[in-house]
Order: sequence, then C-alpha cells, then structure tokens
Amino acid sequence: MADVIDIDDPADPRLDRFRDLAVADRRPDLPVGRGIVLAEGALVVRRMLASRFTPIALLGVERRRAELAADLDAIPAPFYRATAPVMAQVVGFHLNRGVLAAAPRPPELPLDQVLAGAATVAVLEGVNDHENLGAMFRNAAGLGVDAVLLGPRCADPLYRRSVRVSMGYVLRVPFARIADTRSDASWPVELDRLRERGFRLVALTPRPTARPLPAAVQADRVALLFGAEGPGLSDEAMRAADVSARIPMPPDVDSLNVATAAALAFYERLRGSG
Amino acid sequence: MADVIDIDDPADPRLDRFRDLAVADRRPDLPVGRGIVLAEGALVVRRMLASRFTPIALLGVERRRAELAADLDAIPAPFYRATAPVMAQVVGFHLNRGVLAAAPRPPELPLDQVLAGAATVAVLEGVNDHENLGAMFRNAAGLGVDAVLLGPRCADPLYRRSVRVSMGYVLRVPFARIADTRSDASWPVELDRLRERGFRLVALTPRPTARPLPAAVQADRVALLFGAEGPGLSDEAMRAADVSARIPMPPDVDSLNVATAAALAFYERLRGSG
Repeated sequence: MADVIDIDDPADPRLDRFRDLAVADRRPDLPVGRGIVLAEGALVVRRMLASRFTPIALLGVERRRAELAADLDAIPAPFYRATAPVMAQVVGFHLNRGVLAAAPRPPELPLDQVLAGAATVAVLEGVNDHENLGAMFRNAAGLGVDAVLLGPRCADPLYRRSVRVSMGYVLRVPFARIADTRSDASWPVELDRLRERGFRLVALTPRPTARPLPAAVQADRVALLFGAEGPGLSDEAMRAADVSARIPMPPDVDSLNVATAAALAFYERLRGSG
Repeated sequence: MADVIDIDDPADPRLDRFRDLAVADRRPDLPVGRGIVLAEGALVVRRMLASRFTPIALLGVERRRAELAADLDAIPAPFYRATAPVMAQVVGFHLNRGVLAAAPRPPELPLDQVLAGAATVAVLEGVNDHENLGAMFRNAAGLGVDAVLLGPRCADPLYRRSVRVSMGYVLRVPFARIADTRSDASWPVELDRLRERGFRLVALTPRPTARPLPAAVQADRVALLFGAEGPGLSDEAMRAADVSARIPMPPDVDSLNVATAAALAFYERLRGSG
C-alpha cells in the first residue's frame, strides 16, 4: 500500500518530478522532457494505476487520496500529501484536479506485439498537435480501435497535455512507432510491414475522387491513415495506400478536425463489424 | 471599401472593443459581455464577412489586411492597422492570428425560420462548455446539419472561444433558442414544437437499453438531442424524446466527448441520406 507522506515545504526535493509543469509545457517539441509520464486527476490516475505505466510517486490533496484509496492499495509508490496551496507552489499553478501521478516511460512496445490480433489500427503522419493526438487516442479507445501507429512528425502521446486530453487512454491503447519520428527515412516504406500482415491501407482524404468511407473500410484488417489537420497526408503516404477514402461533406466546408474525422472512420469500422 | 486607419497608440479609444480580451475571458458565464461578436484570424474573419454578422471594425497587422483585401472590398467598416506589439498591448496578449473583426450581436433568429426546410437539427441541453459548443457547430457545418437549437443551460455560441473553436461556423450554421437559457421553465415542453413539425426526437445516451444509432435516426426529419458531457441528458429530456439511441462502445470505456458523439450521429444521418 502506498505510504502517505505529508509535505509542508514546497521546495522539498522529493517533489522535483512535479515541479513547474507549466514551464515544462513551454517546449512541447522536446517530447521526452524529464522522462516521466504524468497523470492528472483521479480518473486518469486510476487509469494509470491499471496500465503498464507504473507510478513511482503521487502528489495530491487528502480529498483525492481518499477517493483513490482502494486503487492505491497495491501500489508501493509513496503518496505525497500536500495542501492545495503547497501543491500549487510546486506545480506552478493551481491544479484543480488535485492529484498527480508520475511514472517512468517504459520501453516502447514492439510493432509485432501491438499488431497481434489487431483488426483496426490508426496510422498517423505529422499529427503534431498534442491535443489532437490525445483526442485521437480517446476516440480510439471509445470506438474499439486496437492500436495507434506513429509515423513521422507526430507529437509525443505521453506528453502531459496529450495524456490529459486523451482522458488517460494513451496509457491504455497500445501504440508503436512505425517510422523514425524525427525523419522521413523509413517512411512510407514501413507501411509495407502492415500490408505484409494483411492490412488494407486506407488513406483518409477530403479529395472528391476518393471512395466513400463505408466501402473503403470493408476488410478483415484495416489500417486507417491520417495526416495533420490542414496539409493532410503527404503524397508519398497517399501513394503508399491501397485505397483512399473520404468522408462526404458539404461542398463549401473545410475539413473536420483530424481527431473527429478519425472518429468517423473508427465508427464506420465498428458499425460494419456490429 | 474598408478605410485603412493606422493606429500607433494602444490607448486609442477607437480600439476599445478589442481591449483586454483575456480578462473578458475570465467570466465566460456572462455571455453577452460587450454585446459584440469577435472573429479571430483571416479564415474566421472571412467567414464573418460572408455571414449575417456585419463587422463594425477590424483590427489587424498589414500582412493580414493584405490577405483579406479582396474580402474587404465591399465592407464599410474601418480597418485599424497596427503593428503586432501595439495589437498585443490592446488585446492583452500576443494574438498570433493577427487580425480581429468585431460585429454587433444581431437579433436572434426565430425558431420558425431556423427550422424551415431543415431535415436534421441538433438540440443541446446543458452544453455549457464553450469549446464543446464551438466544436459542435464545426461538426454541424462539416456534416450537413441544418440548425442547432439551444435548450437550457447552454453556453453562448457567440462567445469568443466558441467562435474560434467552431472555426467561425457559429456565424454560418443557423441557431435558435428553444428554451430559456437560464431556467428550465419552458423545457422540455418546447420540444413539442419540433414534434408538431414532424421531427422525430432522438435522445443520444450511452444507456445500453437504447437503440443502435443507425435505426434510430431513419426518418425524414430528425432532431438529435445531446446533453452535457458527464451527466448527459436530464431524465425529463429523455422522457420527452421519441426514441433513445446509443453509439456502440467497448464495455469499459467512458463516454466520448459530446461534440465527437454528435459528429457520429450527424455522420449517421448524412450516411443514410447519401
């Protein structure tokens, strides 16, 4: 059971992992940061406790500790208990969710493991917005997608803002890198690894020449490819796909948010399987 | 054509409409504010210029003015041109979208006008989050929903953050109030006005006893009812509906974001009509 340790001094070095989070937020382009994954709020902390991300420390107010008591039973990590003002001084702002958990980043999952038994996966190219990426994972969890594969130029799903927007589902939905995040060297040739495993590669695009979504996603194994909001998928990724698919939209409307477009494609898979 | 007026003094009273926007943001519960609607960024400003919201003034940097020059041709409102630092002093923060337009709030549209010819409408109860509300309008525009009806306890779609998140589509998608925003006095009895016009009232809910979405939305005229994320629709609204519908989800997952759930329902309507 987690030891409860009361902390009165905001400068206590045991809280360094939780320090100045807003400042850490200023460089979302440096994904690794301190090498820890942060869960915020009782709901997401609970999701972390049930995941492969094992917290090494928690920080929170008494009310949240009490709320999580049953979940903390089997956790050896210490729970640093502080008042809201002390916590605000450590974190750098008032955190109204009242509890944080910090876990080291575990090794990334190998692609083979992530794909085993998967029928629907999302493949992302250039999804470099942490909120869109988090929303993508939340939608993947909510709509039965088995895994998320990160192509080049994607943001880090374990970054604090992504974890929060995903409602903690980045800690549950398996993900793997299918290309070097920083360069395009292995992209999109790595997509062949999906095709070899029997996945149909479906590129989502607003292009009017693409096939309607329902027909395009009818296959036993489907990999849905999404590009960044705005530019969309690169020409290389479009060419590497087996088929391109579009969401029908009124003529004078821009594209949907990328996570919303993904939700529609995920839903179409779920709908066809139901 | 919009007169271009150079402004060097951040204290110039002609810019008062654009002043201290972040502070104005502190009270999102006071929706009317200064009684103006603000569009931010060239894309949303352009959308405002094409809408029933007529700007009385614009403020922006030269680069954005040049970008909008053709759109501004027929606009009598002045364009206050300033440098980015002057603009930041007026607005209260660095606005990297570089241009703002301010329009008075026009009279709200009558329900009859909004419903004329509509086949699919969204009805919102207690959607009091400005971002969710804005995303709802963006999804409505992107997926062919004809109108949005605001029930009790909804946020103001014309609030700055809603306008921004909607990508300006709150300025295009017609909306009307179907109940007093501040009280429940006329709710949900006002829903009868939709039924009288031949709309099937479909309540979206995660309850497992609800019908699957595809069958539930098959009707000529459909009103899709959504509640706030978390609590969902009130019991009264559920009872007032003709049918309840659910999105199929894995058993151990919470609900989707309300705007995402709405997108799936909107898509299902679009899909059935295609």
